[in-house]
Amino acid sequence: MLDLSRAEIEAAVDLDRAFIALEEGFKAAAAGQVQMPPVGYLGFPAHNGDCHIKFGHIAGDPIFVVKIATGFYDNPAKGLPTTSGMMIALSAETGAVVAILRDEGWLTDLRTALAGAIATRAGMRADARRIGIVGAGTQARFQIRAAAHLLREREPCFAVWARSPEKLEALRRDLEGEGIAIESVVELEALCAQSEALITVTPAAVPIIHGDWIRPGTHITALGADAPGKQELDSALVALADTRIADSLEQSLDHGEFAAAAAVGLIDAGDCVELGAVLAGDVPARRSDDDITIADLTGIAVQDIAIARVVLDGVGRQ
Amino acid sequence: MLDLSRAEIEAAVDLDRAFIALEEGFKAAAAGQVQMPPVGYLGFPAHNGDCHIKFGHIAGDPIFVVKIATGFYDNPAKGLPTTSGMMIALSAETGAVVAILRDEGWLTDLRTALAGAIATRAGMRADARRIGIVGAGTQARFQIRAAAHLLREREPCFAVWARSPEKLEALRRDLEGEGIAIESVVELEALCAQSEALITVTPAAVPIIHGDWIRPGTHITALGADAPGKQELDSALVALADTRIADSLEQSLDHGEFAAAAAVGLIDAGDCVELGAVLAGDVPARRSDDDITIADLTGIAVQDIAIARVVLDGVGRQ
Repeated sequence: MLDLSRAEIEAAVDLDRAFIALEEGFKAAAAGQVQMPPVGYLGFPAHNGDCHIKFGHIAGDPIFVVKIATGFYDNPAKGLPTTSGMMIALSAETGAVVAILRDEGWLTDLRTALAGAIATRAGMRADARRIGIVGAGTQARFQIRAAAHLLREREPCFAVWARSPEKLEALRRDLEGEGIAIESVVELEALCAQSEALITVTPAAVPIIHGDWIRPGTHITALGADAPGKQELDSALVALADTRIADSLEQSLDHGEFAAAAAVGLIDAGDCVELGAVLAGDVPARRSDDDITIADLTGIAVQDIAIARVVLDGVGRQ
Repeated sequence: MLDLSRAEIEAAVDLDRAFIALEEGFKAAAAGQVQMPPVGYLGFPAHNGDCHIKFGHIAGDPIFVVKIATGFYDNPAKGLPTTSGMMIALSAETGAVVAILRDEGWLTDLRTALAGAIATRAGMRADARRIGIVGAGTQARFQIRAAAHLLREREPCFAVWARSPEKLEALRRDLEGEGIAIESVVELEALCAQSEALITVTPAAVPIIHGDWIRPGTHITALGADAPGKQELDSALVALADTRIADSLEQSLDHGEFAAAAAVGLIDAGDCVELGAVLAGDVPARRSDDDITIADLTGIAVQDIAIARVVLDGVGRQ
């Protein structure tokens, strides 16, 4: 049995292979080739924490994956990281444990970022390169790194807005240290006006981005809404979009960014498409340069399977 | 983080403490103090395998537990054990992984056996000591060992029937080597007639034990039916019992031993009680020495939490 630490896992991941694995995973999911039961959930309200358990299997894959991901939102005040967890890869042929990936949540952060970049590339105009990031937490950093890598040929430029100027400045400095220039933007509305693509990564519970702020041609990838009660985009914006793309229609309409608009009847499942179907070329993400497109990513188990596979391939196993 | 092998886990378990922990767990579950979402399930029909993911938290407990348990039923032909898996204990206060228990399915076998002995003691007559075991697989051995321990003061005697005379003889020799005498019985009906308590541990998909074989006063603990389509007791027997005890009413009526009788309207939830309520003394298991009582155990997450706690206590952690 393989047993990998976070450092070993980070060293094993090849980003280009990871992007391909994620894309293939989304395509397989949209094609109905992935067993992905509902996500398991435990809540710990006394400690402002929760645990999501995702598990699934891609038909024909010799392994399957169970992921345990915790978020305890008072941890930073205790000097502890908010997220933690691990992935376990098991043989789909014998049930034996193949590998324990003690990633401490890093693989979840990474695969979330890869999905964001994939969805953004799929939805944005072919000539777009001005990317606005909304939020300045850990996942904002991951999103920028992933988009900088995936879109490197079009030389993307990044502007960021965040509620906290201090966090925004810290992010700017961190990424500058990695060779990625960041423009800090004071007004969110101005960021929306200047961006050809927006990636939103906030824990907003009331919409912070409004339909009349968004110019024709803009693509938005929304990642914040991953549980009931969270919403970053106002329902009018969701309703006026020309294309609504979800990693999982079921999740997005139940507790993702499309849930609020669906709840009041502005849209329904027939008005949305799955990311995997877009990536497979079965449906277009946009029909014109003026289309407004939105991708909502709630996170699905096939991402965990794909990224675990990339780690195992990286260490020469399976 | 603690990381324990199967050998370390086996050495850490104190049986008497484990019985108490399981009983307390069942009581907490029946009292509504345990978060136990539906069991996660993945199927691997191409390799005759499945995976159950159980997770839960007892209110106030500093840890919670996720268990991954696989069963691949063609493994013995490959020289591999049928069951495998592990448990992960995490902090309910920070989400951090506290311990990885690489038990390879042993803790599941053990906690299933402890529950069987607990339910049998709860249901059988106070003066009963003749215990019949139906089945001669791994779990039959575990059940006999557990019952021999828990009921040692009344000097139980064990008789076993199994479809395969070879497996029955192997079990008899194995347990004789451990100091437990076993009587082999050729006819299942004869075993039923001579036993004061029966423990059934077969993968039967059609009922093998019939209502008119069971004498007044008998208690039956049924463990085989843990998935749709499995059934060891005929529905007439389930219907005629004076008490029906389930570890989880919801599971038992959905896919356990009580499901078939419920499906045809012979019984409903109001005709069953939960094991934890019996153990707490809230409802009696039997009202007379002539009552026929049945306990159906499908397996619940609180057993996994309880047994993980016993392991951690055994190694002086948490």
